[in-house]
Amino acid sequence: MKNILLTMEYDGTSFSGWQRQPGKRTVQGELERALSIVCKCPVQLNGTSRTDAGVHALGQKASFKGDFGIPTERIPIAANNLLAGGMNAMGKVGDLRILSAEEMPENFHARFDAKGKKYIYKILNCQELKIFSRNQYYHIKKELNLDAMKRAASFIVGTHDFKCFQAAGGEEKRTTVRTIYGISIEEGITEDGLRTIQLEVKGDGFLYNMVRIITGTLVEVGLGKLEPEALLYIMEAKDRREAGHTAPPQGLYLAKIYYNLEELTAL
Amino acid sequence: MKNILLTMEYDGTSFSGWQRQPGKRTVQGELERALSIVCKCPVQLNGTSRTDAGVHALGQKASFKGDFGIPTERIPIAANNLLAGGMNAMGKVGDLRILSAEEMPENFHARFDAKGKKYIYKILNCQELKIFSRNQYYHIKKELNLDAMKRAASFIVGTHDFKCFQAAGGEEKRTTVRTIYGISIEEGITEDGLRTIQLEVKGDGFLYNMVRIITGTLVEVGLGKLEPEALLYIMEAKDRREAGHTAPPQGLYLAKIYYNLEELTAL
Repeated sequence: MKNILLTMEYDGTSFSGWQRQPGKRTVQGELERALSIVCKCPVQLNGTSRTDAGVHALGQKASFKGDFGIPTERIPIAANNLLAGGMNAMGKVGDLRILSAEEMPENFHARFDAKGKKYIYKILNCQELKIFSRNQYYHIKKELNLDAMKRAASFIVGTHDFKCFQAAGGEEKRTTVRTIYGISIEEGITEDGLRTIQLEVKGDGFLYNMVRIITGTLVEVGLGKLEPEALLYIMEAKDRREAGHTAPPQGLYLAKIYYNLEELTAL
Repeated sequence: MKNILLTMEYDGTSFSGWQRQPGKRTVQGELERALSIVCKCPVQLNGTSRTDAGVHALGQKASFKGDFGIPTERIPIAANNLLAGGMNAMGKVGDLRILSAEEMPENFHARFDAKGKKYIYKILNCQELKIFSRNQYYHIKKELNLDAMKRAASFIVGTHDFKCFQAAGGEEKRTTVRTIYGISIEEGITEDGLRTIQLEVKGDGFLYNMVRIITGTLVEVGLGKLEPEALLYIMEAKDRREAGHTAPPQGLYLAKIYYNLEELTAL
């Protein structure tokens, strides 16, 4: 019995999220359909993160077990060809792609063995609305104060009860204490010369919508609606209503899953 | 009777092109539906360019006539709200947007009065395929020789019979002689540090698929498959089969329509 770990990237725009749902186009559903054909047996994936509709991934991970003839290293190209509707032969690409497949020990589990994750959140910070960026950035017109956002973020880093950043509707969690190893906030520039702001958040685990609520709260600090120090009482209150708005899904990217604690905690 | 000139931008990915077609989602179809509601009368648009499926626009123009109560400057916001499925109220945006509306003299016609156009063609020139760029760039892995492409482009500029760059299937043209006022080819860089190449082509008119065939031919020069001087015999031959391949639609943007000859011919 082989145990395969897949790494995938996807553009979440046209998916109803990760999780398999009858009658809807989901990442898990599309992958399982293609892999079942490629492996000639029913495939059920254990995904690491149930990304919401519209959320993207640069390095989602999922594992599955089975007895199948196809060599492991052939799985990505064979499945990608099906996922892109056979278009890969013409050099085209779909909105979901397996980047790699590797054989793991029998007792490995993509989700339970993960030590943590990194998310990226992309903001386009310019006056004019750009329709070509609408599915990949959160558009903020007013100039954001980066220094204020960085100071606010510094209060979030560490091991805390993050109940204030948890949305209703996710699966029940045993505890709302998590460790955030770091938040970086960097300015960038698009091909057209527009200002972007990229947040990177690394942690051992995340509550439902946590990165989007952290982003929304930091945006309010960047707009001057909240002082950076407000993060202290927001987190102390342990009340979702004290935190800022939930930033929209299209700016969020599941960037990396860590199976190695040293890599996760390195700066 | 008012005569209104609209300027629009659209992401062509999810449209079956500009032209109204029964049962298909087209730019003209969507605009006419929204404008007919906003103006409370049946609207028929005269578009300037019939962009193909997948082709984008930054500055498409179209005009229409009618007697309607809505003030001209209110048309974009009212129509955009319908076009985005009422989402504009939430700060969201769809894939088609009216940028401006202006009243023109009664005898003005968006297409017949146009003096020329500018197209932009975007190439992503890097080894790794990027799924998030798949609908907005032509992806070329091997490094393109920009100097060779610029030299080849210099032979295209001017007034010539461009039959070699005309695809079958467009509407019948009286003549295949056109004037290309300029072609610029510039290097750029994406937010992620990847190389882009942007072609801009200005001319008094374009044959069917002309910019895409010019681009495909220049790409072959950039790859070293054709010498820059090959453009001389390709154009002389007046035979589509002598020119290079047709570059894919997703890299093409209808950038600007000119009603003023001086603006068109300026560098």
